[in-house]
Order: sequence, then structure tokens, then C-alpha cells
Amino acid sequence: MNGTGEETGFEVAIVVPKKRDKEKDESCDCVEFLVDELTKAGLIVERVNGISDEFLKLAAPLETLGRAAYELQMKKLTYIGMDLQFEWDQVTAFVRQPDGSLFSWLERYNCFRHLIYGIVNETESELILKFDGDEFALQRNESLVERMEVEGIVKQVFPTHEEVTRKRLLWIWALNWLGFTEQPIDEVYSYFGIKIATYFAFLGMYTKWLVFPAVLGLAVQLLDFGSMQLLVLPSFFIVVISWAVLLFQFWKRKNSALLARWEINYSLTDYRAINMEMTSFKQSREQLQENMDADKPTEKRALQKDEWFGLLLRIRNNAIIVMAIICLQLPFELAYAHLYEIIESDVLKYAVTALYLLAIQYYTKLGGKVSVILIKYENNQGEESSADSLVYKVFGLYFMQTYIGLFYHALLHRNFTTLRQVIIQRLIVSQILENLVENSIPYLQYSYKKYKAIRKKKCDKRSAGAKSLQFASRVEKEYLKPSYTASIGEELEDGLFDDFLELALQFGMIMMFACAFPLIFCFAALNNITEIRTDALKLLVMLKRPVPRASATIGAWLNIFQFLIVMSICTNCVLLICLYDQEGNWRIEPGLAGILIMEHILLLIKFGFSRCVPEEPAWVRLSRVKSAVQARDVCSKQLLKSLSQRKID
Amino acid sequence: MNGTGEETGFEVAIVVPKKRDKEKDESCDCVEFLVDELTKAGLIVERVNGISDEFLKLAAPLETLGRAAYELQMKKLTYIGMDLQFEWDQVTAFVRQPDGSLFSWLERYNCFRHLIYGIVNETESELILKFDGDEFALQRNESLVERMEVEGIVKQVFPTHEEVTRKRLLWIWALNWLGFTEQPIDEVYSYFGIKIATYFAFLGMYTKWLVFPAVLGLAVQLLDFGSMQLLVLPSFFIVVISWAVLLFQFWKRKNSALLARWEINYSLTDYRAINMEMTSFKQSREQLQENMDADKPTEKRALQKDEWFGLLLRIRNNAIIVMAIICLQLPFELAYAHLYEIIESDVLKYAVTALYLLAIQYYTKLGGKVSVILIKYENNQGEESSADSLVYKVFGLYFMQTYIGLFYHALLHRNFTTLRQVIIQRLIVSQILENLVENSIPYLQYSYKKYKAIRKKKCDKRSAGAKSLQFASRVEKEYLKPSYTASIGEELEDGLFDDFLELALQFGMIMMFACAFPLIFCFAALNNITEIRTDALKLLVMLKRPVPRASATIGAWLNIFQFLIVMSICTNCVLLICLYDQEGNWRIEPGLAGILIMEHILLLIKFGFSRCVPEEPAWVRLSRVKSAVQARDVCSKQLLKSLSQRKID
Repeated sequence: MNGTGEETGFEVAIVVPKKRDKEKDESCDCVEFLVDELTKAGLIVERVNGISDEFLKLAAPLETLGRAAYELQMKKLTYIGMDLQFEWDQVTAFVRQPDGSLFSWLERYNCFRHLIYGIVNETESELILKFDGDEFALQRNESLVERMEVEGIVKQVFPTHEEVTRKRLLWIWALNWLGFTEQPIDEVYSYFGIKIATYFAFLGMYTKWLVFPAVLGLAVQLLDFGSMQLLVLPSFFIVVISWAVLLFQFWKRKNSALLARWEINYSLTDYRAINMEMTSFKQSREQLQENMDADKPTEKRALQKDEWFGLLLRIRNNAIIVMAIICLQLPFELAYAHLYEIIESDVLKYAVTALYLLAIQYYTKLGGKVSVILIKYENNQGEESSADSLVYKVFGLYFMQTYIGLFYHALLHRNFTTLRQVIIQRLIVSQILENLVENSIPYLQYSYKKYKAIRKKKCDKRSAGAKSLQFASRVEKEYLKPSYTASIGEELEDGLFDDFLELALQFGMIMMFACAFPLIFCFAALNNITEIRTDALKLLVMLKRPVPRASATIGAWLNIFQFLIVMSICTNCVLLICLYDQEGNWRIEPGLAGILIMEHILLLIKFGFSRCVPEEPAWVRLSRVKSAVQARDVCSKQLLKSLSQRKID
Repeated sequence: MNGTGEETGFEVAIVVPKKRDKEKDESCDCVEFLVDELTKAGLIVERVNGISDEFLKLAAPLETLGRAAYELQMKKLTYIGMDLQFEWDQVTAFVRQPDGSLFSWLERYNCFRHLIYGIVNETESELILKFDGDEFALQRNESLVERMEVEGIVKQVFPTHEEVTRKRLLWIWALNWLGFTEQPIDEVYSYFGIKIATYFAFLGMYTKWLVFPAVLGLAVQLLDFGSMQLLVLPSFFIVVISWAVLLFQFWKRKNSALLARWEINYSLTDYRAINMEMTSFKQSREQLQENMDADKPTEKRALQKDEWFGLLLRIRNNAIIVMAIICLQLPFELAYAHLYEIIESDVLKYAVTALYLLAIQYYTKLGGKVSVILIKYENNQGEESSADSLVYKVFGLYFMQTYIGLFYHALLHRNFTTLRQVIIQRLIVSQILENLVENSIPYLQYSYKKYKAIRKKKCDKRSAGAKSLQFASRVEKEYLKPSYTASIGEELEDGLFDDFLELALQFGMIMMFACAFPLIFCFAALNNITEIRTDALKLLVMLKRPVPRASATIGAWLNIFQFLIVMSICTNCVLLICLYDQEGNWRIEPGLAGILIMEHILLLIKFGFSRCVPEEPAWVRLSRVKSAVQARDVCSKQLLKSLSQRKID
């Protein structure tokens, strides 16, 4: 057929336990059955015997993937710029990835999952399968792998690294320390998928841009401007704010340019999100969907009710979180900051800090759990929307936790020396520590698991007298590595959550205290240059290959960064007032102060409120989506045929 | 064929002078030739002899319009929710208007124009045509009507009222004073097109919403809240700002709901705008377009250069306007306000005001002209974008002119009595006057023209002894009525510019001085209730039927309204300070004041700046548009056939 014969590498592995006794008959053995079925489904299976488990490494010829894509009704971009349903016969009509392959890593992974979990009992009766003497009956149309997961036979299905690409990326990306902020983003995209590539593109751009305020900050800190000294800080402040505004505006441009380069139709990503939304509509209210055309006004009203109810729920949940932060966390943080300020003994200080750190860990975990529960009761539309909702809620916790102590030092005590100390401490110590922890904890986990596995094996084999045991297979090592998960809300987020959180907290720190300590930008720039490489190293060496996710922008984080810019305008003004008025001579009438506070609240209402009410009613969006789906369904087949013909001509 | 046989009313008229001598041979008479050709083109022509001119009233069978639409390659919404190129054979595939007709008024008008101006000399040689003894030669492929316009034979081509619908609208809309804010928006849409209907929908919603702050303002003004009196104004202020924020958020929702009801695919309107943009790209740089696929990076760089150059031009032009306003208009306005304040003699005051009004008229006209010239040097993409650019520039002039005097009274002199007087004076007197002028000037113009026409005729016919002359034909009366044009920048805007300007200035006035005079909302509400009906009356009775325009939102005005809300937050705070501190006892440190001013500037930068840099690079947008166009072109024909078949089945 047209340019096929390609096949993927071994990109997915299934873990099953090793059989204890190999002598038994293999007629009904479920692992053998699974391997047969996988082969029948068109996959290439390589069985690897590990020390304590057996691994089924899977690869797929392109044709098998194509069939899976067809069954999944996958929409793919055609070269006329329209997403159409994939069909194998018309494969020439579809746009290839920048690296020449037909399917992106995300699509391949989805196909693999479809193939693996799509193996069902197709016979008319139950199937009796055995494993190590245990028996279970597979019902008609029950998924084999799902059942085996329930029975504990399939321990995990995980994506595996491709050695060639991984090694290549290791050299040109993770270990390329001299590259400064240069990264092979396109290859990262092909290997890790769009979400991770977007993170690294953002990190690279942010770091590159950071050089400018870092140099400026250094100049402000070191040079003496003579009589102009009074004006230096305000000018620095203005430049920094403009810099930040431009940074994010240009990031948006870069993001859409990246999407265009990766052949993702942006407006269609948008639309895919809506599509997802529609599915959730369908799930929740299938009945109404059916007689939609019958009486439209009823449908419209129901949708509208639904929309407002969802909005109300979200507002209520956010109010709960905000109240919890203000009533529970704020006093706690202030108490700690106050204690730290008044305690004189160093030993006691450390004790208090240790206690505080313990408590805050617990509090954060609890907050994360509460947020996840709350989100379940919101009717968020689609997974990405829930993930965004979680980001906002959890960021609130971290925001309070990170900055309130700093404000305490800056505002109440006007103690700029302590403030600078704390900032340096936080930035350097915590970020270096974090990088270390980020990279060492996975390694320790891995080592521990490895040790355990070997010890267990040794115990088993002590009789056999085998002395030196080593991991022969790479796939087993990978299996023992931890996966890339979020510290909070694992169900909704992957490890990028923590990486973005770190970045956002750093950005908030450098922006909000820019005037108190201009040198801070240098530290941040240095930190980020190492961050790029260590994060890359973590992904390539320390962890399992992450499961690809679909989101194509930095999502909720963009809004958080924008919010931090606005916050930093206000905080820097307050800092400047404190700096210029060290003796506290400036008086302000209470009436004037009240009016100023009211003004700020109103500006917040103006710019925040409008986000609450969506600009397009749900029923309009739904009807648009419905017609778009209809349009695609109608034209897909016909169009594809003519497209691939035209291409061949 | 499928549900045809309909035809439009007489909706367009061509005006030609009456022939002086009717005896001459008619073989080469160009009017006769025109009538023949119009009939051949499938139009229905009715000739009406007026007093001084002759009118060719045109109607069209649906089939003729369909042919024109096909030739225009008009895109229309099909029932699968996709815009496809219109084809007469597949007419069942297209969605009908809410009132049952196939084409909207805008589409009909475009078809008419295409048919009228599409009459060309199709013979191989020149055509010699005569009119009243004058001769001219029509070149090959030259448009007949265009040439006749140049020769002064076709005086005007204008859309005419449809008597039945007009009368109906007059009764249920313009004269329905008891309807409060109720309007038959759908019928307005069918008759006047989308832009005017959107204006009236906005006006209606705004007026309805105004009732709430009007009642509140009345309560604040009249009731005595005892010890809480101090808190009344700030609370009123907060409520009003929230009200305004919600109003515009809900307006956006209503706008998209309206578009859905009128079967306009919003995302596609969006896309149509992009389409327009692409045409302008093509016009300006056809060369580059051709070898676009040949070397993409060059193309990309050129587009990027183009984009930034355009941005720079726009910034420069806006800077010119802002400088002109600050350096020329501001001193002038302040001088007038100051003179008005210090002059004691009433006579002198009136003289100064008269002088000021004269000067400001002249200045505004000049500003408008300069703006239009500047806009020509911007590379705005599409007509609507230029119109928006004009709106921003001219609004700057009017903003200064309307409010600076008020601020002078409020801030410098803390003279709230004068302020209130001036506000009432402006609101009541000027708005009532404006309404009167708006409606009487067209009538006077019409009467004058009528008088002139009759007098001329009388002079001619004095010998013939005809005594009483009356206008027999409605079309001639309409011809004499003024058309719906903007007072500034006629080339770019229609009469809605003035109506929106009036609305925006009123909104600015009531919002920015809300705290100084809460009763103001009542006046505005009353004024707007009359405004709805008088504007409707103006359109239906006083003016020619307006040429329909395509824009489907309130466009630049929405941004202006949003800007006014932000401004009003700041101004009301200043007003509150002045109100609570009548004696001027509140002191503020210069350093603090400086920092506060800096904060406001930075917030402005944050929220204004980001609008300067478009979020999507031009080349991304262009490539998306190109592929969308391609997609449509490929699928149009095939798809249509299957669609109309499915419909028939």
C-alpha cells in the first residue's frame, strides 16, 4: 500500500508475574491466551523474562495501528486542513507528522490501548482461563486485559522508552549543558507528545527572556546612579512589568506557531475540547439529547438551567476553598511568621520551622484531597477542564503558603533584611533542594524496588545457589522506575503539575518582590537554566516514559501567571511605599485608604468577574458543535476518497 | 423547482433624468438599452415617471437572485452547519432565513448590485449609446451602469422601502410607544439587516437593564439613610460597577444567541473576517502569494515583517491622534471651562459658549478628516477593521470634548453644584435637542429638496400652465430623502456611528459621574426609552432605506464601553474623595501620590498593552485560512449534491 511497511518500535509493555511452575499444561493458560490474542490483533509481541516478572513488549505494524485508528473513529488532519475520520484506504489524504510518521505518539498510544483492551471474549460462551492453578471465567464480551488486571495477573500496562531515540535525546537535550536554552523541541514533541513539549518550550522561552531583567537587576543592585538613585527602583519596576506582559503575549504567539508547526489545527483543538464537552453532555443527559429536535425551547431552557447550576456549583466550591485558605491557613501562616520573628533562640527557630513544615505538608495534602472531591461534584466538561479547576484551587493553597510569610516581613515589620534573606533562602535552598529531591527520590525509589526484587529472588533461589543476580532486561528496569505523577490529585494531573507549580511560584516570587531585591532575577535565571536540563534528565532517565496527554496549551497556568503579574503591580507599589518611607512618616487618611481599597476591589471585579459568565450560552455552543459533527460525518467518506485520488494524480 | 416561484418586492431603484424631448428615435437610447439589459438579466423592471427624474424600480425572481449568488460564489449556511458555495440546483441544502426567505436582505442587496453592475458590453466592438443628444462609446467589457454614473446619467442606485413591511414595522415598532423596550427584533433583522438589528437589540437590552440603577439612584437621592448615609454612595458605586460589568457580559451572550437565532454561524463570521483579510493580503502582495509553497520560510518572514510594520503604523497613527488631542484640544477645552467659570456676565457667557461650539465643531470635523487620512495609511485588513480603527480615533476626540469640562468643575473647583447643573444640562438639553435635530434635519433636507424640485419643474412648465404639482410616486419621495450616513468618515461608517457615539457618550457620562449625581440614571433611562422609538422612526420614515452591512457584533464599541467602565472606577474614586473632603483637609505625600499614579499606569499597561500584540502570528492565521478555503472548495460540489438528495429523501 501507500508508503507503509513501517512499524513502530516496542512502545508499550504488559507486566505479568512469572509462572511458578512451568511444567503445567498450557492449554488454558491465560498469558499464553493473551499473547495469542495480541498476535491475532496484529501486534508484534516480544516476551522478556525478568527476574520476578514477565514482560510482553508490544510493537505494531502501521497497518494494525491504522485499523485501530479506524475503529476508534479517530479524527486526523487531512492536507486540505480539515479533520476527517481516519480510514486506512485513504491514508494518503492525511498529513504526516513532522518526523515523517503517520501517527503522533499520543495517537499511537491510544491505538495501542484500544488494541490491548479491545481483546474480548468473542465466543458464544464463557471462557475458562487459568493462571498458576487459579481459574477464572471470562464472560462474553468481557475485556480480557481488564479482567486480568482485576485478577491481579496483569500488573501494569505502561509505555516504554525507545532506546535509540531516548539515547539521542539524552545527548542532544538533557546533557547538552552548553546549549543554554536551546532544546530540540520538535524531537521532544515526537517522543513525549504535545503537553510535555509545550512545557519545555515555555520553560526555554521564559528562561531566555529572563536574561534581560537579570542583567538589569544586576545593574540596579551594583551600580550607583547618584542623584537619580531614587528613580532607579520605580523605573526598574515599570520595565519589569512591561517585560512580563510582553513575555506572555509573545508566548501565546509562540504557542500558536508551535501548534501550526506540529500540524495541529488550533481552532480544531478548540473544537475538540468542545467535542469532549458534548460527550459529557451526552453522558449526563442522554434522554434530553434524543428529543432535542422535537421541542427546542425545552431543550434550550434545560441546557441553560444546567449551565447556571454548574456555574453556581463552581462558585460555591471556590468559595469553600477561599474560605478555608483564609480561615485556616492564613492564621497558621501568620502565627508561624510571627513566632519566627520573635523567637531568639536558633534551636527553637529550627524546631518551629520543622513543626511548621510538617504541618503544612499535611495541610496541603488535605487541601488537595478536598479539592479533588469538590471537583467531582462540579460538572466540569472534559478531563482538561477538571484538571484546570484543580490547578486553580491548589494554587490558592500554595500561593498563601509561599508568600504570606514574605509579606509579613515586608509590610508589618518593614524588615527588608530579613525579607531578602528569606527570599534568597527560599529561592536558592528550596529550588536546589527541590531539584535534588526531584531527581534523587525517583532514583531511591527505583533502587529500593530493585533491591526488594533481587532480595526476594535471592530468597527464592537460595536453594538453587545462584549468587549474582543482575537485571538483564531494560524493560524490567523501566518497570521498577516510578511514573511521572502529580503530588496532588493524581487522578487528574500528571507530573507537569508539579513542574508548573514550581515555575509559577518562582515567577510569583521574582515578580512580587522585584523592587525589594532586584538581584532575584539572576538567581531565577541561573536556576531555570539548570531546571531545563534536570527536568529533561528526570524524564529520560529517572522515570518511566510518561503517558501522553492531549492538552496543547499551558492552560490554567497562563491565567495564573497573568494574575501574578497584576498582583505584583500592587505588591511592588506597597513595597516601594515601605522602602521610601522607612520611618513610617507617611500618613494616609482612613477615608482615602478606604476609597483606594474599594478601587482595587472594583478593578478586581471588573477583570475577574467577566470570566465567571461564559460569553456564549451553552445551547449555542452545543448546536454549533452538533452541526459541525454532523458536517464531518456527512462529508468524511466521500471527501476522503476524492482527496486521496487527487493526491495520487 | 424546489419551492420557488417566490420573488422579491421592488427593493432597489435606479434614478435617471427624464428625457427632455421624447420625439427622438430610441434606437440607441441608453436608458432603453439599460432597461432591456436589466430585463435580459432576469430582473423585473417597473418604470416610474417622477416630476424631474425617471425611476427604474427593480425586483427579482428568486431564480435570478440564485444565479447571481452562484456567480458571486456566495457562501451560505447549509443545514449540516457548514458554509458552502451556493448552487441553485442544490437549493434544498441551504438553510432558510427565520422569515422563510432563502436570502437575507444583505445577500439580496449584494445580488442586486451584482446584477446591475454586471451588465457589460459583451459585443466584440464598442457600443455607441445616446442620451438626450449626448453620445458616448461603451468599451468592450465595460460596465454599463458604472459608465452611466460617470456620464451623470445614472444619478443614484439605492435600496427602496417595501411599503407593506415598512408600514407594519411602523406600527409594531416605531409607534409602539407602550411597548417600553419591546421590539420585534427578528423583523427588524429581516428588513434592515444584521448590523442595524444588533444596534437595536443592544439599545433595548441596555435600556431594560438601566431600570435597575435608575430606581436605585432615585432611592439614593431621595431617601435618608440616617447614620449609614456615609456608606450609601460607595455602596451605590460598587453596585453600579458590578451592574455594568454584568451588563456587557450578558450582552455578549445575547449577541451570540441572536446570531444563532439568525442562523449565522458565529465562528464562521469570524472566519469570514479572516477571509476578507486574506483578500487584502492577496491584493497587496500577490507576487508573494504565488510562490508561497515554493519557499515557506521566506514567505513567513515577509508576512511577519508585514505584520509588525502594520502594527508600528497603527501605533504611530494612534500616537499622533493622542498627541493632537492632548496638545491641541485639551488646552482649548480647559480654557473654555476656565472662562466659563470666571466670567460673570451672562451675555458674555453665552457668547463664549457660542464661539466654543463653533470652534469645536470645526475641530471635530478636522479631526475626523485627519483620522480618515491616517487610516488609509494603515494596512487595515478589511472594511470593518478600518471602521473600527476610525471609531477608536474619533471617540478620543469626543471623549475629551464631552468630559474634560466636567472634570474641571469636579476636581479643580470641587464645585458639585455646577457639575450637576452641567450634567443635567448636557443630558437633558443636548439629548432632547439631538433627538429633535436628528429627526428634523432629515425632514428639512427632504422638504427643501422637494421644494427645489417642484420649483424647477414649475419654472420649466410655466409656459405649459400646469399649476398644482404633487409627488405622485413614493419612490421619488424616497429618492429625495437623505441617506443614513455618518457625520464623520462617511466612506467607512454608516449612520450607526452617530447613534452608537451618542450611546457611548451617555454611558460614559452616567458611569463616570455616578457618585456625583445618582439621579442621572433616571434621566438616561427615560431618554433611552424615547431613543428606541425615535431612532426607529428615523429609519422608517425620515431616511432612505439604509444599505445593509455585514458586521454582526457591536465591534469596537464594546471595547469602548469596557474602557469607560474602567475609567469610571477611577473617576468615581476621585469624586468620592472630593465629596468626602470638601474642605480639602486630606493630605497625601507626594511620594505616595507618585507611586499611586505609577500603579494606575502599570495596570493600564497590563490590560491595554496585551491588545497591541495579536495572539496569533499572521502566517499561522493565513495558513489556517488557506486550508479552510481549500477544504471548502474541494468538498463544496460533491457535498451539496448528497445533501440535497438526503433532504429530499
